Amino acid sequence: MGEFDLIRRFFTRDQQVARVGIGDDCAIFGAQVGYEHCISTDMLVEGRHFLSDVDPAALGYKALATNLSDLAAMGAQPHSFLLSIGLPQADERWLQAFSAGLFQLAQRHNCPLIGGDTTRSPLVVISITVQGLVPHGAGVLRSGARVGDDIWVSGTLGDAALGLALLQERIRVGDPDERERAISRLHWPEPRVALGMELASIASSMMDLSDGLAGDLLHILRASHRKAAVELAHLPMRAALRGLPRMQALSLATAGGDDYELLFTAEPRASARIEQLAEDHELPLSRIGRILPLAGGELPQIEWLLDGRPTQFEAQGFDHFDD
Amino acid sequence: MGEFDLIRRFFTRDQQVARVGIGDDCAIFGAQVGYEHCISTDMLVEGRHFLSDVDPAALGYKALATNLSDLAAMGAQPHSFLLSIGLPQADERWLQAFSAGLFQLAQRHNCPLIGGDTTRSPLVVISITVQGLVPHGAGVLRSGARVGDDIWVSGTLGDAALGLALLQERIRVGDPDERERAISRLHWPEPRVALGMELASIASSMMDLSDGLAGDLLHILRASHRKAAVELAHLPMRAALRGLPRMQALSLATAGGDDYELLFTAEPRASARIEQLAEDHELPLSRIGRILPLAGGELPQIEWLLDGRPTQFEAQGFDHFDD
Repeated sequence: MGEFDLIRRFFTRDQQVARVGIGDDCAIFGAQVGYEHCISTDMLVEGRHFLSDVDPAALGYKALATNLSDLAAMGAQPHSFLLSIGLPQADERWLQAFSAGLFQLAQRHNCPLIGGDTTRSPLVVISITVQGLVPHGAGVLRSGARVGDDIWVSGTLGDAALGLALLQERIRVGDPDERERAISRLHWPEPRVALGMELASIASSMMDLSDGLAGDLLHILRASHRKAAVELAHLPMRAALRGLPRMQALSLATAGGDDYELLFTAEPRASARIEQLAEDHELPLSRIGRILPLAGGELPQIEWLLDGRPTQFEAQGFDHFDD
Repeated sequence: MGEFDLIRRFFTRDQQVARVGIGDDCAIFGAQVGYEHCISTDMLVEGRHFLSDVDPAALGYKALATNLSDLAAMGAQPHSFLLSIGLPQADERWLQAFSAGLFQLAQRHNCPLIGGDTTRSPLVVISITVQGLVPHGAGVLRSGARVGDDIWVSGTLGDAALGLALLQERIRVGDPDERERAISRLHWPEPRVALGMELASIASSMMDLSDGLAGDLLHILRASHRKAAVELAHLPMRAALRGLPRMQALSLATAGGDDYELLFTAEPRASARIEQLAEDHELPLSRIGRILPLAGGELPQIEWLLDGRPTQFEAQGFDHFDD
């Protein structure tokens, strides 16, 4: 089967977003007056981000989910995406499952595939570029955190890292439901797209948690030239994490990646609106700390508190070239 | 060195196109009234599209050149690009050369890098997504070829394929200048961006030659529901190809990939304007054939002529899953 047949069979679906979609040299789509475009890209490599025996449906889903999460972090509405995929062979069942996982999420977010590239490759490699729209000037940057802002996170922290630890049998959890849920969070993360769009008019800075709270919050602090105090006792954790030894739980919650929750800052007077959003979305939104000014010569950093008192705590985010 | 330092050091340059560039969850840029966006993506994998000992400067250059060529094929003006790159290690000299080759071309076409992703990978993998702008409705599709249109190509055919054959010592060419030039065409292809933009108001259909004339023209014929007669004696070839045995030369010119010339169709009355473009751009533009109607039940195909007479000639384009 040829490359072009493959693309057509598994990756061509009806779409209304682009005037020209898959099958020409470029996709073509019109601009929308009053809006800005947000664009982001991610690459996933076999052996690095997933194992060769990964469930292809989960892989297709997660590859798009992580990109939609980047749009959510800007407060953007998904527009469309492009998929480049390198494969050792054109395995029909694999492609069937992969595309089913991918399009399940794409359809839910009205984000059609409008272009891409397919090539043979010794390893499975997936690169997705996603585009979104945001009202002019409304995109939420990492650089907007102001002194006195509260720091918030959506959902719960450390679930995906716990899921990975469970799969690797580094940690045991008795409750089969909690076990299942942690592993599901790892494979099927939920990009917080609708929440992100509503936070666009509330949050002063925002990003998605892909590498772990400690490392990701540092990106906001560096971009905003601020520091932060974070209360470890306020980190939202599910029962499975709370049942672990405290340091192990805190390590998962602060340094565990792949949660794809939103991390954002907002003025204290926005609290009521944020709490209302939590109710509307049936999703916990937790205030975990506060943005502080940098003293002269100080570097952006996180001061960890435990029950209100400064504590020595070392959390390290995930960095692709540091391990 | 961390991922984020790497990106900053080698891939962050000043740019004015995006309001937010590298360093946030997405890049953000404004829409341009009256224009449509063109977007395209390509993936290059070590061992498949290039060898591990490739000159990294040429690799950086070519990775962007092939994408700019897709914009050229729509008649679009380059806007910006995103780069995802997977690397076995963060080799500073390699990154220095790669980024130099990349940005040399990016600057020449005013096409800044506005976002991307860097990850560790067992193999070098490069995925570029390029964006361009085209006046509303002016993008040249593959589907626009009409009966009676002339078929044109820019530049000369088969040079890159000859360059590859020379490197692999499958073919010998005496003249060192011609040898050098063929290899250079393979490694440093010139995307026909300015020509493509001018052809936007002239060509009825257009694409870039990446997989070889025979396979690529078939894409236009299928999209346009037409067939074509192509005169082999009119294929533009450099002296190095003309000096080879005829069938070898024709095979390189029709089935050899990587030329990144423009293949387009136009009404016969546009000939004078096209010949003027050739003069303006100091680039041969050659009329190689004509678009014909499909008889009932006929499939889109190429009828090869030699000196005006039908000839049995079999050329096969390059298909990533067929070899």
